[in-house]
Amino acid sequence: MITLYDLVFADDRRPSPFCWRTKLALRHKGLDWRDEPVGFTDKEKIAFAESKLVPVIHDGAKVVKDSWAIAEHLEKAYPDKPLFPDDPTRAHARFVNAWADSAVHMAIFPLIVGDLVDRVRPADKAYMLESRGKRLGTTDFAAFQANAREKGFAAFRATLEPARRILATQPFLSGAAPAYADYILFGSLMWPRCVSPTDLLEDGDVVHAWRERMLDLFDGMARRAKGP
Amino acid sequence: MITLYDLVFADDRRPSPFCWRTKLALRHKGLDWRDEPVGFTDKEKIAFAESKLVPVIHDGAKVVKDSWAIAEHLEKAYPDKPLFPDDPTRAHARFVNAWADSAVHMAIFPLIVGDLVDRVRPADKAYMLESRGKRLGTTDFAAFQANAREKGFAAFRATLEPARRILATQPFLSGAAPAYADYILFGSLMWPRCVSPTDLLEDGDVVHAWRERMLDLFDGMARRAKGP
Repeated sequence: MITLYDLVFADDRRPSPFCWRTKLALRHKGLDWRDEPVGFTDKEKIAFAESKLVPVIHDGAKVVKDSWAIAEHLEKAYPDKPLFPDDPTRAHARFVNAWADSAVHMAIFPLIVGDLVDRVRPADKAYMLESRGKRLGTTDFAAFQANAREKGFAAFRATLEPARRILATQPFLSGAAPAYADYILFGSLMWPRCVSPTDLLEDGDVVHAWRERMLDLFDGMARRAKGP
Repeated sequence: MITLYDLVFADDRRPSPFCWRTKLALRHKGLDWRDEPVGFTDKEKIAFAESKLVPVIHDGAKVVKDSWAIAEHLEKAYPDKPLFPDDPTRAHARFVNAWADSAVHMAIFPLIVGDLVDRVRPADKAYMLESRGKRLGTTDFAAFQANAREKGFAAFRATLEPARRILATQPFLSGAAPAYADYILFGSLMWPRCVSPTDLLEDGDVVHAWRERMLDLFDGMARRAKGP
């Protein structure tokens, strides 16, 4: 049995883009898991992994931390239904991962930081105010977010241009069917979706249409996720 | 025999990032070609291709335009020394191509537009002033470039972060050896190198170290290219 340690916000919201990658990878492989929510201030739950970051999984006796390492572990331990089809050296998925973690997350974070702070568990609020305050140089996250949104929506959508060009020619980043490269970017988009009332994507965008297909996967698993 | 129609600037400079992709792909395959320089105002040379954009190649009787289509043609016609190793669906190279054409080129262009205009062939200057003037809403390219450089160097280097993360773990974007994904980004970096006295990369950057390895390829072919 697998246990997944998943970041939890107030009212059981689960916004972590990295944990979404892992949840989709588990469903892709047809694997069940026991869910173990972890707030920012109860990281002692994952002390055994010598990590302060989720996702972490317990797969039997084996502990794996970091979403990429978990994907590699799952691919090796459960080779059916590959997460990296047609990508033996994983070059495509690795590049999409590096791009999402840098360009995409950097563009999303300022647009939702106020929403994130509003929806964190009350017990975790002080932690978040301090850690994100240090990163941004302010604790007025609502003002910071409002200011970022003045120009940030267009900049965020421009950031998605590489994915847009691929999705204009094929249904998924991985080709005809979704695989780990799709779960990476989709996880990034679940992050705002779980905390922000405003949709960051526009209706006519092929990335929006792709996200709809992703939301339908696995019997609408992500579509049913607790929203803002 | 292959003929390559390659964009030419003053004093035989060849800055086109798309033509560099093709030149490196040709060398990768071990193919020779006849060089046919084309300026902005003698596009009638490529009228047969029903294109106003280079690169275009004549491979025997076959005409291929667009750097990506040329790479696919070369891979099919000359399957030895693959341009897309371990990437049967070309997902990795396609994503890098979409990313370079959008994010990377958008970050480079404002930083070098003044240098480009200064180094275009005198006969093409009026064309370039008009076409780039329309795009930028000004024809004072020197001032535009100087202004863009105030913040643009850091933004450009941040844009390279996905490549930086991959190159921190392996010598080339394609793995242990260079292939088309490398030629794509390297072509983008040859564009400023052929026209701008200022290096856009910093010494300690792994992207800089990778570019040095790329400059050494094929007996230093790109290193010997006419510079600013």
